[in-house]
Amino acid sequence: MGNLSLQTLHRDSTPILQINPDRLWQSLMALAKIGATEKGGVRRLTLTDVDRQGRDLFVRWCKDAGLSVAVDGIGNIFARRPGTEAGALPVAMGSHLDTQPSGGKFDGAYGVMAGLEVIRTLNEAGVRTQAPLEVAAWTNEEGSRFVPTLMGSGVYAGVYELDYALAQTDLEGISVREALTSIGYAGVAQPHRLGAYFEAHIEQGPVLEQTKTTIGVVLGALGQRWFDVAITGQDSHAGPTPMETRRDALLAASRLVLEVNRIATTFPDYARGTVGFLQVQPNSRNVVPGAVRMTVDFRNAKDATLSAMVEVLKQSVAKVAAECRVSIELKEVVYFPPSEFAADLVESVRQGAEKFGYSQRDIVSGAAHDAVYMARIAPSAMVFVPCEGGISHNEIENARPEDLAAGCNVLLHAVLRRAGVA
Amino acid sequence: MGNLSLQTLHRDSTPILQINPDRLWQSLMALAKIGATEKGGVRRLTLTDVDRQGRDLFVRWCKDAGLSVAVDGIGNIFARRPGTEAGALPVAMGSHLDTQPSGGKFDGAYGVMAGLEVIRTLNEAGVRTQAPLEVAAWTNEEGSRFVPTLMGSGVYAGVYELDYALAQTDLEGISVREALTSIGYAGVAQPHRLGAYFEAHIEQGPVLEQTKTTIGVVLGALGQRWFDVAITGQDSHAGPTPMETRRDALLAASRLVLEVNRIATTFPDYARGTVGFLQVQPNSRNVVPGAVRMTVDFRNAKDATLSAMVEVLKQSVAKVAAECRVSIELKEVVYFPPSEFAADLVESVRQGAEKFGYSQRDIVSGAAHDAVYMARIAPSAMVFVPCEGGISHNEIENARPEDLAAGCNVLLHAVLRRAGVA
Repeated sequence: MGNLSLQTLHRDSTPILQINPDRLWQSLMALAKIGATEKGGVRRLTLTDVDRQGRDLFVRWCKDAGLSVAVDGIGNIFARRPGTEAGALPVAMGSHLDTQPSGGKFDGAYGVMAGLEVIRTLNEAGVRTQAPLEVAAWTNEEGSRFVPTLMGSGVYAGVYELDYALAQTDLEGISVREALTSIGYAGVAQPHRLGAYFEAHIEQGPVLEQTKTTIGVVLGALGQRWFDVAITGQDSHAGPTPMETRRDALLAASRLVLEVNRIATTFPDYARGTVGFLQVQPNSRNVVPGAVRMTVDFRNAKDATLSAMVEVLKQSVAKVAAECRVSIELKEVVYFPPSEFAADLVESVRQGAEKFGYSQRDIVSGAAHDAVYMARIAPSAMVFVPCEGGISHNEIENARPEDLAAGCNVLLHAVLRRAGVA
Repeated sequence: MGNLSLQTLHRDSTPILQINPDRLWQSLMALAKIGATEKGGVRRLTLTDVDRQGRDLFVRWCKDAGLSVAVDGIGNIFARRPGTEAGALPVAMGSHLDTQPSGGKFDGAYGVMAGLEVIRTLNEAGVRTQAPLEVAAWTNEEGSRFVPTLMGSGVYAGVYELDYALAQTDLEGISVREALTSIGYAGVAQPHRLGAYFEAHIEQGPVLEQTKTTIGVVLGALGQRWFDVAITGQDSHAGPTPMETRRDALLAASRLVLEVNRIATTFPDYARGTVGFLQVQPNSRNVVPGAVRMTVDFRNAKDATLSAMVEVLKQSVAKVAAECRVSIELKEVVYFPPSEFAADLVESVRQGAEKFGYSQRDIVSGAAHDAVYMARIAPSAMVFVPCEGGISHNEIENARPEDLAAGCNVLLHAVLRRAGVA
């Protein structure tokens, strides 16, 4: 059995199974050495030799834990622990092993290592489940080397054709197909049905830390609508050109930045709006800008609200264009509908946190995760834990061992509830 | 005598001396061939061999017109026509022969060619003046190859030490001193006192064209205060970061752009405000910007109003920094006080336009010109003529022959009034 403490007793004083926090932490730290950067981060780009080393370590650990390992055509790894009930669909846990170019130790790696730790805990405690359990490591979640992002889970969920994904190339012209073959992870396993999918992940945002909450019960993920904006005015001398005759593209752009912010702060349902990219032409200090290119990133938990935000943006664009006497082209480049996780799985997460008395709050994922695509083909849910300063995709990404352990405990009990203790 | 027309008769029906429009135009076109670009513009960077060719042509024309030519230590060219009155200070006309990298045919060249045309007209008409006349071509007005701008007139007016100017280098490490020597324009003439200075120039702005005015009577030049602005917030994920926890540097920058515009449109005295340069970090569409660098260019005809604009800007900066929870550093990099031209010379310009019945309006130069520095050491004035679309510093810069001729006629009569017909 796992370690016991006051916290590990039910209200009726029976012990609660819990994971081994040290083992989880040691696994994360061992994995983080593969591709470790000087600043304490990790650079483990998908399908590189470093990624292979990370995969190999994970596969070895899975085999050590008695799991059978399968790899599919896009290189997703599935490590299975059998269940006791014939024909029961497997309950999977997972995330991804690849990182951003200057990534951290926890983004993705945590979800995979937490799944493995659940298995190890069950093995150690001699607990069997009715449904089989699986730990999944999805290929190329980050999209840093090959686009699109969420490639492995996207192929698995039928969002992308396998051949399309395999044909994508990196900046050096190497295809996904070639890269998979060269690291030995071009597998042959066919997609199989899943009974459920759980993903533990660091929040990658500040909410849990700022509210001193240990567990984020993830209700779903925000929908996203991304736009490219091209503003054309007229560049002119900053000196001789009176204010009233200007057609200043940056003035128009600035008004749109404020509009995007106003829309995102006034709409409900976790509305977010960001202008992350803005480029000025000719960008000279004494020339009134003649052109600006910028982006808009709108997110919302409800598709109808997201659409309403876009409608207001379009009105703002028309108004700003007329008042600043510029032309503004608004082009939608990405649409990603909001996703809602399965209510009973979300409830399992909530109950898991309650079981341990962890502070918890409902949260919506602002970013996409593999679970978002998995939710299209199986009941899915996520567990968030805090990360330091809400910082991720950065070498200084950090998380506390006790929070990572708590998230893993919640995962364990949510999975047990779904898979059924035999 | 020059050509006569109805327009060239005084109210009392005596003929009015006027310049030769065709000769002026042909001179401009001949000069524009030196450094001509494919798109119809001119690239005649200061102190290059192309500049030498332009200078040589000008000097030859001056000598053909019987003028004595002197070159000073910074390469300014002075071509003199003697007066009849011993000891009278010369009345100078001029501008510059260098262009922007993608410049036009008229910026600078017009003022020099107009001065030469005045001399040629007087020669042809056999008119002598009491004071000597001079045509000046100032070195490196544009500042494209060597900074500072207005170098030749700046040295002449004592704004810069000669040795300081000579030591400036271009991007290839060539000094002004070396460049002057290599094109043969490192002269030895000492600065001499001037009785007055007149400069004819295209407006480089839209006011005359839009108001269908032929002559701009230039009252002075706007003062300028330039700032570098550095905004530091915190970059964060566009997805997981709620609006209320963001420290968005671009949102703050956009508010400042609007403030600069508001200040410039509400203050009097030809107030202008421009953010011409803005750069975002990290400038990625799904990252809330953590840093922005931008510029502010404020101009005004009155120094007190200019200062008041800056005070409001500082208040805006403090307010925006607090409300957006970012830090904003505002650093002044250029201060150029407003200049007022000599009232009696301005009146000469006005009367010159009246004499021909040209439409005219008072105007303030938004940009700096050599006349701005000359005004510090001699009574000075400028004549503006319209340019197409107000566009300058561009290969498509254009002006109508009849407007250029009108400006030259005004210059002729303003100069005659000042120098005195013998």
